[in-house]
Amino acid sequence: MKFLSKLEAASKKNSSLLCVGLDPSSPEDIFSFNRSIIDATKDLVCAYKPNMAFYESAGQAGLEELHKTIEYIQLTGIPVILDAKRADIGNTSAHYAKAVFDIFMADAVTVNPYMGFDSIEPFLKYEDKGIFVLCLTSNPGSADFQTNIYLEVARKVKEWNKVGNCGLVVGATKPEQLKKVREIVGDMPILIPGVGAQQGDLKAVVGKHSIINASRSIIYAKDPKKAAQELREKINSLLS
Amino acid sequence: MKFLSKLEAASKKNSSLLCVGLDPSSPEDIFSFNRSIIDATKDLVCAYKPNMAFYESAGQAGLEELHKTIEYIQLTGIPVILDAKRADIGNTSAHYAKAVFDIFMADAVTVNPYMGFDSIEPFLKYEDKGIFVLCLTSNPGSADFQTNIYLEVARKVKEWNKVGNCGLVVGATKPEQLKKVREIVGDMPILIPGVGAQQGDLKAVVGKHSIINASRSIIYAKDPKKAAQELREKINSLLS
Repeated sequence: MKFLSKLEAASKKNSSLLCVGLDPSSPEDIFSFNRSIIDATKDLVCAYKPNMAFYESAGQAGLEELHKTIEYIQLTGIPVILDAKRADIGNTSAHYAKAVFDIFMADAVTVNPYMGFDSIEPFLKYEDKGIFVLCLTSNPGSADFQTNIYLEVARKVKEWNKVGNCGLVVGATKPEQLKKVREIVGDMPILIPGVGAQQGDLKAVVGKHSIINASRSIIYAKDPKKAAQELREKINSLLS
Repeated sequence: MKFLSKLEAASKKNSSLLCVGLDPSSPEDIFSFNRSIIDATKDLVCAYKPNMAFYESAGQAGLEELHKTIEYIQLTGIPVILDAKRADIGNTSAHYAKAVFDIFMADAVTVNPYMGFDSIEPFLKYEDKGIFVLCLTSNPGSADFQTNIYLEVARKVKEWNKVGNCGLVVGATKPEQLKKVREIVGDMPILIPGVGAQQGDLKAVVGKHSIINASRSIIYAKDPKKAAQELREKINSLLS
């Protein structure tokens, strides 16, 4: 099933634009931890987004837990966006794309645009997958190099979106710039991290075709189900 | 031992600025393949550079072979630059740095600058390791976004180089721009890929404090030892 159809189906079924980031910071019992979060939130989200770094840092066992986590999510019908921020020269990027889609079986991936088109092309060839290109990120360092090129990134990704499998990442801490990006890319899905621990402006960034990601503020909440429920309602109330 | 001292020692011992990229494109018997390359070239190189993508695409077994490869290289005293091109927001990048340096035990890493300072800082905290920041890459896509910012990347990395653990990556296909970068960063090590299969201009890019990487043109040569020897001699002849 195409990523976009799967995303839309989950979003409709759960009345949700909320994506939960599965970024377990303890290397112990990662799968059990994730399972409890998935069980608590699977009726409340449109996607899950595990970030590779948290699994790689737990060694081979961590990557095994990532496999198990993705298999478990696939049973729910909710799409998995693997937050990997990969890219390399074409020949090498093809290996990363293989790892993300054929080994880890993700439905979508995040990629880094710095190396340009031929570094993203091997991912784009997976027409049924979703490719979210970093555009303007939520962290302070985004001011170092992105300021002068993020709109160019948005324009290029619009060009690259021949089969409708592209998306962008724009941080919730950048509402004005997000508006400009949205004007360029139309209804392309935009993954928006930074509303939780990073204190982005939810009201200013919610809109159709957005995927609002929260990680730490949900998975480390005293009651993750309640936290997810509240954030979903808040997002929905801002939509109407 | 500090990466830079280890690099200089290997470079002096082997009279070499040559780095061999260990990018095995078949997932079968990766370690045996790498071992034969290492055995044939360990008196001819200043560093080895395995690229993570080729191991990730071979699944858990591939990463196990990477572990074994790095352990085997460590016995030779030659430093390992893990070509991972990672970076993420600070909290997450710390996990990538842990994976690269504590799990895979690399001496140095390549990182992507797109997300700015706080995405690189967790790597920089490993003062004894080498952090090579992508500046201007060798592939065609480097024209998409890097052209207007690569000199700014060089300037920033110079600022970030407080403890002398930074380096840059500049492709051999860009000799004029490399000259400008060199003027900014002084004697910072510059890793230069793209002289082999990518046909970069060796004569125009060789210099002190450069690390000349070749991957496919060595590891898939009929006689890898001879190919490494010839390239080492060619580099050395251009130095004097």
